[in-house]
Amino acid sequence: MAISLSKVTVLGLGLIGGSLCRAMRDSGFASQVTGYDRDTGVGAEALELDVIDEFEARLDVALEGANLVVIATPTLVAAELLADVVGKLPPEVVLTDVASVKQNLVAAYQQAREQRGSEAIARYVPGHPIAGSERSGVSASRPDLFDAHRVILTPLADGSEDALTLVRRMWELAGAEVVEMPVAQHDAILAATSHLPHILAFALVDALSRSDLSDDIFRFAAGGFRDFTRIASSNPVMWRDISLANRDQLVAAIDDFSEHLAALREAVAAGDGKALETTFSDARTAREDFIRQQQS
Amino acid sequence: MAISLSKVTVLGLGLIGGSLCRAMRDSGFASQVTGYDRDTGVGAEALELDVIDEFEARLDVALEGANLVVIATPTLVAAELLADVVGKLPPEVVLTDVASVKQNLVAAYQQAREQRGSEAIARYVPGHPIAGSERSGVSASRPDLFDAHRVILTPLADGSEDALTLVRRMWELAGAEVVEMPVAQHDAILAATSHLPHILAFALVDALSRSDLSDDIFRFAAGGFRDFTRIASSNPVMWRDISLANRDQLVAAIDDFSEHLAALREAVAAGDGKALETTFSDARTAREDFIRQQQS
Repeated sequence: MAISLSKVTVLGLGLIGGSLCRAMRDSGFASQVTGYDRDTGVGAEALELDVIDEFEARLDVALEGANLVVIATPTLVAAELLADVVGKLPPEVVLTDVASVKQNLVAAYQQAREQRGSEAIARYVPGHPIAGSERSGVSASRPDLFDAHRVILTPLADGSEDALTLVRRMWELAGAEVVEMPVAQHDAILAATSHLPHILAFALVDALSRSDLSDDIFRFAAGGFRDFTRIASSNPVMWRDISLANRDQLVAAIDDFSEHLAALREAVAAGDGKALETTFSDARTAREDFIRQQQS
Repeated sequence: MAISLSKVTVLGLGLIGGSLCRAMRDSGFASQVTGYDRDTGVGAEALELDVIDEFEARLDVALEGANLVVIATPTLVAAELLADVVGKLPPEVVLTDVASVKQNLVAAYQQAREQRGSEAIARYVPGHPIAGSERSGVSASRPDLFDAHRVILTPLADGSEDALTLVRRMWELAGAEVVEMPVAQHDAILAATSHLPHILAFALVDALSRSDLSDDIFRFAAGGFRDFTRIASSNPVMWRDISLANRDQLVAAIDDFSEHLAALREAVAAGDGKALETTFSDARTAREDFIRQQQS
């Protein structure tokens, strides 16, 4: 199926937004890729790096004539922006996003739909590319960032099939493997595999840095500690927003983890070597299965 | 100070023991390096790889005539072996080890001393090289494994100065930076920087693998998850033994961590963005200070 749009507008020119612009321009998916960002300095950089065809600092003008609008800002800003732009766009326009939590965006869309009716607003397809980099910002953007990575779409039960096809095509042309699942499943999976590990890493480094032994602790930490705490160097504002947006699923994941940790703590305290070895051994097997699966 | 011993015996020819043998032979610290291992296949491999001068499968014969004996077996075996060999060695012999928990070995030594008196047993200097590798076994041993790594010695308050000097020299000739500290401090630091992170990684992978969503969880996990859980692929028996040997310090570290995690959980549940951002930001700063310190 050949699809080529006359204009795509990407709101937010960070690593993900910028990389998507590059991929769309490389594939010829859109005749014109317009970028919008609250920071005009970022816009100038995006033009200089040839990431976009056009930069537009006025949101309304950026949206004008677009067939597809992609929200690529941080999580909480994305929900606000969606509530703002969804009513400005007619129903033939397709709206999607790249945020790592989906339920708050879907809730914002449902609210707009209840207030205005489906016929008055853009068609929305929630999306989340499972890709990233230690680097951030438009200067780190790459056309192949999504190549061989998964993108999860969480389409609304009564959403438009055409809109879904268009967004799916956008990601496939960027080299991604597209998977669909319900919103709650997406948010639970991301809570477990990404949001919870970040909370644990932040909690560990915070606990150790407040310990009486903190100077020695950091002095004698070895390579394993460095790997384990790498994600504690992530952007605090981004992770604050993700934690707030995925609050319920994250609390459930923390509680589930805490139960397992409490069981291990009891096994250590009781000197129960058999229980410890079983848990450690099961965990090692589970991780090795996971690594094998990733490589296959 | 030039020290050259006529015979050093290393008990346990794994990654650490084998690497220490190689380093001692390279530096000429000992005229003869004898290896002992319960597994004679490992002994044959060590000879073939030219890790040792001589392999001896009989413990008593291996100890005969040694000036220095190094216990390089896993943690719990090390404590048993220490209790066994310390009384077989006269007081002019120096005994040391490489185990990652020190209090159980020190307790075993103190018990032998109370039973037999200082004059009847070897002089013991507890040690722990902060070095390792993802690989294990004598085939992974390297003479430069300890180069530019730290070795912590936890000498007894009334221990022999000469014995301490000898063990310090052994590690310095292997390229290591030697640091001394009390036993309890060592075990608390290692609980925080190494043993606790392993428990968290094992608990996380175990919790996720038992979740209803486990298939999807592992399917959609990204690079950060892989790094974060790397240490959950560690040897279950080794970590069971370390957890048992360092029980009190590890339980204290888990409890301290759990308090910090509970506070973060409350902040997420309450939607307290300010508290989350402060903790995440403090943790990021602490980790970046740690990384800078490691690089300097």
